[in-house]
Amino acid sequence: MSTQFADPGTLDHQQRDEGTVFAPKFDANGLITAIAQEAGSNRVLMVGFMNAEALARTIETGEVHYYSRSRRALWKKGETSGEIQKVVELSIDCDQDAILMLVQQTGHGAACHTGRKTCFYRVIESTSTLRHTGEPVLFDPAEVYKAQ
Amino acid sequence: MSTQFADPGTLDHQQRDEGTVFAPKFDANGLITAIAQEAGSNRVLMVGFMNAEALARTIETGEVHYYSRSRRALWKKGETSGEIQKVVELSIDCDQDAILMLVQQTGHGAACHTGRKTCFYRVIESTSTLRHTGEPVLFDPAEVYKAQ
Repeated sequence: MSTQFADPGTLDHQQRDEGTVFAPKFDANGLITAIAQEAGSNRVLMVGFMNAEALARTIETGEVHYYSRSRRALWKKGETSGEIQKVVELSIDCDQDAILMLVQQTGHGAACHTGRKTCFYRVIESTSTLRHTGEPVLFDPAEVYKAQ
Repeated sequence: MSTQFADPGTLDHQQRDEGTVFAPKFDANGLITAIAQEAGSNRVLMVGFMNAEALARTIETGEVHYYSRSRRALWKKGETSGEIQKVVELSIDCDQDAILMLVQQTGHGAACHTGRKTCFYRVIESTSTLRHTGEPVLFDPAEVYKAQ
């Protein structure tokens, strides 16, 4: 896949912020932040990164692809766990360096590798302490990821 | 302010993912991703970055502080525009490298520097084209930022 996105360097600030040319700004590592939000509930499920290939595949297939920084590889969400994210709507922010994805979370409805719906299951109580919110675990990670 | 956060290197994966010690993982530039979500509507307003000082001030004051990468400076949200973000709840994700902030957006209710409630006011239609959602402009940026 050889999708080329428009070069953000060709847009002035007004065009970048108010225009309709999509020119995503990848960072020095070639990545852009992508936030998955559950359609309907509007709950934020997870935050990941995409390189150009992951972004292009997400747009073209309607299924969310990320770039795994730890594995340094394209990562189709759900390829191992079955927890595929179906795209409902993709948005870009004002300066075109972050993507918001409204998704339908398939499978057990669990975006997080811990088996929970969302990765955000602990509240920050202070600069040192977290508190679990009681977010239920929907699948057993030891079972789902046992082949890895 | 000399707040020190726990060193994430002292936690194993189980402690990082399931524990209650807050050990935020800042990236190579000393930054962590922070997502502001509007309390009540659950709309995602914006995405920014925090360094340790911005995160500590956010926790301690209950008002959101970011780190501006372009200005290379601590940035209290709303210090110029008056669009302060009051913290309702802060959460951390599974691997402790992203923060979700439930906020009350004060002022005109506009998180975006373009004067809109949210920075996500354009849908990605294809790999080349955006479409405005019609998100209303709540303040005149030329007026609000004229002193800058």
